[in-house]
Amino acid sequence: MRLNKRIAILSPVAWRTPPRHYGAWETVAGNIAEGLVARGWDVTLFATRDSVTRAHLHAVVDRGYEEDSAVDPKVAEYLHISEAFEHASEFDLIHSNYDFMALTYSRLVKTPVLTTIHGFSSPAIMPVYEKYRDGYFVSISDSDRAPHLNYLATVYNGIDLSLYPFHELAGNDLVFLGRIHPDKGVHLAIQVARLAGLPLLIAGIIQDRTYFREQVEPYLDEKIRYIGPVDVPGKNKLFARARALLHLNAIPERFGLVLAEANAAGVPVIAMDLGSCREVIEDGRTGFLVNSVEQAAQSLERLSEIDRAACRQRVERCFSIATMVEAYERVYAAIFDLEAAKQS
Amino acid sequence: MRLNKRIAILSPVAWRTPPRHYGAWETVAGNIAEGLVARGWDVTLFATRDSVTRAHLHAVVDRGYEEDSAVDPKVAEYLHISEAFEHASEFDLIHSNYDFMALTYSRLVKTPVLTTIHGFSSPAIMPVYEKYRDGYFVSISDSDRAPHLNYLATVYNGIDLSLYPFHELAGNDLVFLGRIHPDKGVHLAIQVARLAGLPLLIAGIIQDRTYFREQVEPYLDEKIRYIGPVDVPGKNKLFARARALLHLNAIPERFGLVLAEANAAGVPVIAMDLGSCREVIEDGRTGFLVNSVEQAAQSLERLSEIDRAACRQRVERCFSIATMVEAYERVYAAIFDLEAAKQS
Repeated sequence: MRLNKRIAILSPVAWRTPPRHYGAWETVAGNIAEGLVARGWDVTLFATRDSVTRAHLHAVVDRGYEEDSAVDPKVAEYLHISEAFEHASEFDLIHSNYDFMALTYSRLVKTPVLTTIHGFSSPAIMPVYEKYRDGYFVSISDSDRAPHLNYLATVYNGIDLSLYPFHELAGNDLVFLGRIHPDKGVHLAIQVARLAGLPLLIAGIIQDRTYFREQVEPYLDEKIRYIGPVDVPGKNKLFARARALLHLNAIPERFGLVLAEANAAGVPVIAMDLGSCREVIEDGRTGFLVNSVEQAAQSLERLSEIDRAACRQRVERCFSIATMVEAYERVYAAIFDLEAAKQS
Repeated sequence: MRLNKRIAILSPVAWRTPPRHYGAWETVAGNIAEGLVARGWDVTLFATRDSVTRAHLHAVVDRGYEEDSAVDPKVAEYLHISEAFEHASEFDLIHSNYDFMALTYSRLVKTPVLTTIHGFSSPAIMPVYEKYRDGYFVSISDSDRAPHLNYLATVYNGIDLSLYPFHELAGNDLVFLGRIHPDKGVHLAIQVARLAGLPLLIAGIIQDRTYFREQVEPYLDEKIRYIGPVDVPGKNKLFARARALLHLNAIPERFGLVLAEANAAGVPVIAMDLGSCREVIEDGRTGFLVNSVEQAAQSLERLSEIDRAACRQRVERCFSIATMVEAYERVYAAIFDLEAAKQS
């Protein structure tokens, strides 16, 4: 099948694909493109012009609008999305990793459109999904599903394991890695570190300045440090020093790429039992699922129960690019069958 | 021609069509629709659901996003614009009165798309016009044209003269009518009123609160009054009391609907000689074009030279709905000819 099918992968243009620091949607869209290329597909990636890919790159936006204030987000989005749809006839499938906006072009082309819903950015966008509910949808976890939408499958995000070397020995520090935003529970990670009397390294872009100033900064000292955003090598340095990753999200996680990345490096994850965390972390095997700061602190005493090699093995099995792309190949095949049935 | 052609008029959804108070783009889109219906065309107006029209109304957005905070602007725009294009095959022409966004759907449909450019909302949007420069464009004044764009014509905005009764006798007050925003020169109107020692009535929505607080509010007293936004009857009350309309815009005007409305009521207009004002106001005949506050104040002494009936006659001749719609009929005919030539 794959040799004569042409796939367009539509990535967001907030950041480069793959992103330098932050940008989960672009990360996954890039991984899908690379994984498909590796398996012999003819893939065109629609992304910013500075993106790095082995697929054909098709770009009309020079740089991510979050990275370059000269790029107008609204103009970039309309030009970028429409460009992909204007080239629809060159593809057998458009696989959108964009937010709801791309759906509004989908009925104007004959090419089938698959949307991986990387998250519902706001309840206000639900009417768009309501209108286009007859489209093809994939969820990134079983927990992050909207009722009344027909999903073809859940396909877990896959990470590039070669980027995250395995560390056999545990480090000493606790690590927080993610956006500095109340949703991500940085303040809860700080509470756990203080309860446990352990050092904590905090890394990530500051998305909510007030939150950082009021609930993070006052607690920074020799033991609890904020080191700014980190790229992949930076993440690996953190993983090498990590006793555990603290991911005490305050709202349901949609997937949680960083959980898989930490596990890939052999780092156990202590995660709030909300949303998809239960699907990514196997409680007691690759980390601990908790419901409170106290439970999180207690679980730190049980870290010796976690087999670090088992953490990596689970990521290799469940959250590798190959696993993800094989799942998408099954979804694509289902769509091609459904489309062929429509024609006949 | 008109009897067998179906026209879609795409109006913005910031406000109802026609708007209750402010909303120039919706006003003109509504006037085009009504004017075409009056002349026997089959017209569908894409606008908010609470719009009032004799055309067929097609709506997916309940209320204008500027009028109802429950309406998400981004979601409303994407749903509204795409809806019109999804129905493209039902029309012989889509006449867009929307900002640049609608252009990004235009190549996905076979129906020709005419865009009346009601203004370039930001230099950042020019790349969109650059890309779609092979489209059909109309400017609303000769002065508001972008270089490198091919325009089929300038079609001046038309107003509904029946809404603005003629007042033979001049009133005593100076009137400012427009958005409270530095671009509109409310502060300059205040300076003129103070120089001339005449009362000034200021009406319009406050778009820039800081500007209002710092450059308008401190000067309000018994003689210089701010009365809030006004609807059409409110405008007519102002025109009945008006000695002249002060329109001392600080940036080039694109068209200036209120200039035509005031003239229709017989009210002379003192306007800054920037942008389209020279096209709407005939200097010395329907008002005065000035370059400074001092000139504006001096021109107040020459108001007796203006024949109020001539003001209305000029609007009837140049800026009526009928005049506008006849001009659009010529543009439509040219498009149908060009499209027919493409087919053959």
